[in-house]
Amino acid sequence: MATVSAVADDERIGRIDMRDLAVYPMDHRIAAVSCGGDRVTVDWDDGRQSRFHAVWLRDNCACPACRHPQALERSFLLVDAPEVIRATAARVLPGGHLEVEFESEAPGEPPHRSRFDAGWLRRHCYSDWARAERAWRPRPWDTGSRSIPPTVDYRAVMNSDTGLAEWLTAMRDWGVVLLRGAPAVPGEIQRIAGRVGPMRPTNFGTVYDVVSLPNPNASAYTPIGLEPHTDLANWRRPPDYQLLFCVANEAVGGDSILVDGYGAAEALRESDPDGFRLLATQPIDFRFHDDGCDIRDRAPTIEVDAEGQVVSIRFNNWLRAALDLPESVMEPTYRALRGFWKLLRDPRFQIRLKLEPGEMLAFDNARVLHGRAPFDPSTGHRHLQGGYLDRDLVLSRLRLIERG
Amino acid sequence: MATVSAVADDERIGRIDMRDLAVYPMDHRIAAVSCGGDRVTVDWDDGRQSRFHAVWLRDNCACPACRHPQALERSFLLVDAPEVIRATAARVLPGGHLEVEFESEAPGEPPHRSRFDAGWLRRHCYSDWARAERAWRPRPWDTGSRSIPPTVDYRAVMNSDTGLAEWLTAMRDWGVVLLRGAPAVPGEIQRIAGRVGPMRPTNFGTVYDVVSLPNPNASAYTPIGLEPHTDLANWRRPPDYQLLFCVANEAVGGDSILVDGYGAAEALRESDPDGFRLLATQPIDFRFHDDGCDIRDRAPTIEVDAEGQVVSIRFNNWLRAALDLPESVMEPTYRALRGFWKLLRDPRFQIRLKLEPGEMLAFDNARVLHGRAPFDPSTGHRHLQGGYLDRDLVLSRLRLIERG
Repeated sequence: MATVSAVADDERIGRIDMRDLAVYPMDHRIAAVSCGGDRVTVDWDDGRQSRFHAVWLRDNCACPACRHPQALERSFLLVDAPEVIRATAARVLPGGHLEVEFESEAPGEPPHRSRFDAGWLRRHCYSDWARAERAWRPRPWDTGSRSIPPTVDYRAVMNSDTGLAEWLTAMRDWGVVLLRGAPAVPGEIQRIAGRVGPMRPTNFGTVYDVVSLPNPNASAYTPIGLEPHTDLANWRRPPDYQLLFCVANEAVGGDSILVDGYGAAEALRESDPDGFRLLATQPIDFRFHDDGCDIRDRAPTIEVDAEGQVVSIRFNNWLRAALDLPESVMEPTYRALRGFWKLLRDPRFQIRLKLEPGEMLAFDNARVLHGRAPFDPSTGHRHLQGGYLDRDLVLSRLRLIERG
Repeated sequence: MATVSAVADDERIGRIDMRDLAVYPMDHRIAAVSCGGDRVTVDWDDGRQSRFHAVWLRDNCACPACRHPQALERSFLLVDAPEVIRATAARVLPGGHLEVEFESEAPGEPPHRSRFDAGWLRRHCYSDWARAERAWRPRPWDTGSRSIPPTVDYRAVMNSDTGLAEWLTAMRDWGVVLLRGAPAVPGEIQRIAGRVGPMRPTNFGTVYDVVSLPNPNASAYTPIGLEPHTDLANWRRPPDYQLLFCVANEAVGGDSILVDGYGAAEALRESDPDGFRLLATQPIDFRFHDDGCDIRDRAPTIEVDAEGQVVSIRFNNWLRAALDLPESVMEPTYRALRGFWKLLRDPRFQIRLKLEPGEMLAFDNARVLHGRAPFDPSTGHRHLQGGYLDRDLVLSRLRLIERG
């Protein structure tokens, strides 16, 4: 029962309101469409083909009855629709957009008709070729090439959307970016973060001062060297992006060390698949406590997504609690942790730099481990300020810039 | 090479400093200990037995060289220790505590010796019986019994640690608790939340007003009925606990509906194992956007932990974005979502109540879905205030109360 419809009338339609504020360029039009009941097949003017399920189209109808005109949220309730949703007709609208008619949902009720903007539809196509085109992958580090960390200029980030987008894109894709040329004053970190949104408060406050303290509640507040680690591994959701701003760095030592955790995890998968599997499945225990809190969580060292891609690392020797594991996996877990730790210390996954006053590192706390060389507090003042940004807000800001 | 040591000297030892501020009652002493190289076996005075790996004991040494005396964090670096860690001797200390001696870590170096407090050790035992004793499970709802939701008194929560602990324990174990008797004024929600810690800000602010608005940016701000949903499913980590405080509720309608998502998920696992598996593995797309943000995430509808237990639910018809799935799983996913949705509407998993002014619901946004019946804004004023608390802070507060 395939029906092929030609363009039906000659009135021009510019764009169709999909109740979506994002920008979907109208770079392709629909050339032809065919309707096969549970599927609508769209042929684009560049020869590409998209196939949409009738249920998907029905679910994404953007008419005022199906999507709230102000809230922009779906009000259509699939659960109340017929079990089987069928498209009975489809046609190309003037302007190259799509119109679909569905089987009547109740006796005597007119069939529902939905219109889809071609720009929106092209960007929401879920055929294999389209999903492959959209796929995002983190950019691997070449630690020998000096391309890591990418750098951005403070003034560009503060004064232009282009500069801001460049900073955030580097954060997202490389997992690390060095910002230069900021006034080396306390609090500047918050002004820069304000370009994105509110910082994420934790048990260390919103902005914390990394200085050597006489009575520290955490190892960061001592002058000792810090092994590569991710921050706040003891939180149910550790912070996403970490900012580390340099106010002063006159002491001897104290170099920053950054490690590509994704690279190290892949090396572990290669050299010790069993160890990798164990770290990717066995939750282990983390904890931080002081006078004002006692925050604990259990999570695997390496988190992989449904496709097996490494998406986040939790590694922190100070915050690792007494492991509470079944007896049989205790030794294999220690062995795997040790193997991963050695890889994290391997220079091929590391970069080192000494932050200058007015410089700020931003890095992905789910990907990049950080550490520091010991410093001698008697040789000069060292003062960094740290804080965290939610990934949700970083990516949201990028989308708003794109929206223009 | 097993060695059994008797109590070695007669000086009494009260407690051993494990650099841990939590309370570990000294309710059992070690009666005997034997040392088998890679394992130390502890016999308790009540007949229980614990077996500890030498590497675990070494890793948890709390001496000032291995654990920072002020930061209380581990400074021992397992990665630098010998590949194989062996205990060469173990003895029971006066007071019933444990001392272990390890094989020398380098030629000529004296063997490291670690002491373990018996109270601490008992609570960190990872033998099967001990792990089973400590296991926490959410309490299942009996929606017919009127035990749901448990209720607590505002004054008790505000003025006593016992009342506060009762409130937080109910939140943790039942996933829902009704607080009664608060002053029905805007802002009170924040004073109550202050008993735990700072509320979690989101794109809706820290405290948001649930009222019917002329130009709403979300369906919550209309008078329409709301299907059961979890909040902020579009965030990488949706909020943990939700607070919903009633300032006024004079309009006709607007009952609150609460659904035990764990119960519904188990019912799905029972009735449609394939659908359950799909929802527990296939990430789907969520999105909220308005003039100020565009926040998107992909995550499975049902999250299960390493043992297969359901730990969180994401379900929200407004925030579900256009699904971006491989063609072959699109229809099965819709089918499974529909089946789950029907279960979420099933009264056997639901409770309904109409909030009175000065009442506040607190519920676990990972377990409990909430919804509301439509209301008629022309019949009276309806004003709720909402906000979120991090689970990390809720559980931390409970641990601090226990610490005393």
